[in-house]
Amino acid sequence: MARTTGSDGEKTEAAVREAAVSLIARLGYEAMSMRQLAAKVGVQAAALYRYFPTKEDLLFTLMREHMEGLLKAWDRTRPASDDPAARLAAYVENHIAFHIARRHATHVSNMELRSLSPERLTRILKLRTAYEKELRAILRDGAEAGIFEIDDVGLTAMALIQMMTGVIVWFRPGERLSIAEVTTTYLSMTMRLVGAKIDTFSVARPVRRARDAVAL
Amino acid sequence: MARTTGSDGEKTEAAVREAAVSLIARLGYEAMSMRQLAAKVGVQAAALYRYFPTKEDLLFTLMREHMEGLLKAWDRTRPASDDPAARLAAYVENHIAFHIARRHATHVSNMELRSLSPERLTRILKLRTAYEKELRAILRDGAEAGIFEIDDVGLTAMALIQMMTGVIVWFRPGERLSIAEVTTTYLSMTMRLVGAKIDTFSVARPVRRARDAVAL
Repeated sequence: MARTTGSDGEKTEAAVREAAVSLIARLGYEAMSMRQLAAKVGVQAAALYRYFPTKEDLLFTLMREHMEGLLKAWDRTRPASDDPAARLAAYVENHIAFHIARRHATHVSNMELRSLSPERLTRILKLRTAYEKELRAILRDGAEAGIFEIDDVGLTAMALIQMMTGVIVWFRPGERLSIAEVTTTYLSMTMRLVGAKIDTFSVARPVRRARDAVAL
Repeated sequence: MARTTGSDGEKTEAAVREAAVSLIARLGYEAMSMRQLAAKVGVQAAALYRYFPTKEDLLFTLMREHMEGLLKAWDRTRPASDDPAARLAAYVENHIAFHIARRHATHVSNMELRSLSPERLTRILKLRTAYEKELRAILRDGAEAGIFEIDDVGLTAMALIQMMTGVIVWFRPGERLSIAEVTTTYLSMTMRLVGAKIDTFSVARPVRRARDAVAL
């Protein structure tokens, strides 16, 4: 999103990022040129290089900010409770809300890892691992407490993340289902997948319909 | 896979397809040139146009054959049984085996839809719908028979397909888990997700370890 406050420089940088996400999502990173990007933003190509000295600096910034944003969003929404079901529900809600609001950026983050240098790829993968580790800890705690029934914590974490991120492929606001309805259905699928009692969970944490409605 | 029988023309066409899948998976469709592709195959660019008059003809052919191959593989493996649990298990096994064996083609098929003409996009989406419809029918039959517990058949089908296809993102042969082990875990996650009794299912259909081992 373009910021509405800040210096002209900050506004331009935000506009560059927004335009880059949309161009890369449409054309792919390798096919996008800095010249096309400058034209879309309405600045000279030279101006872009002030913010992003190389095209890969731009890609890396987009990906790093996406993952840092996801980790921050989770930090803000993680419940104080130790209850694995409540923590899992919060993780699912946050994951779906974050990605639906950032469809193109998610697409870019998932598809363009191939274009990062090895050192930068490692940095992005570390952020991903940190995020996935949060889910694995919830699943492990639930299994140890006998609340969840899980065969393989690592595989279950990957399956859940891919199932949830997949929402961006088909979900469009204003169609058959609202974000709140989609989230409710994904919550019950998740709870069944990990072998949790649905009843326990729905008492533990109702879907935050009001916040979802505001977020988009 | 390159064919080992057939005329030189067929061999070249197969080599072009194989090289295209790998180049598009690495660079993206928009960034790949027919000249690069010709160089990779070791033919003149003009020779490519004999098989694929336009670059988009090539992309469309790759995507159509991927989806037709998936539908054919399912036709070959679908069980004669009416039992929804046995049919669901067969669908999961076929889906995972097919996609793990075609990691790059799956990547191309999922990522490059944006580059098809509207008419061709419609044709590919029809094939996808036909494939997803098979899964929806299984889920609906299971729910109606009281064997599955499903909130939303459409959402559950999408969730399962994305969860299963996601395997290609992290699975590499020869690492911690075999295809058979991954499939077994995905089968129990699927059966729990749809609210089926795991016991009923595991009696109904053991994982075909032998076939999986041969397939790769």
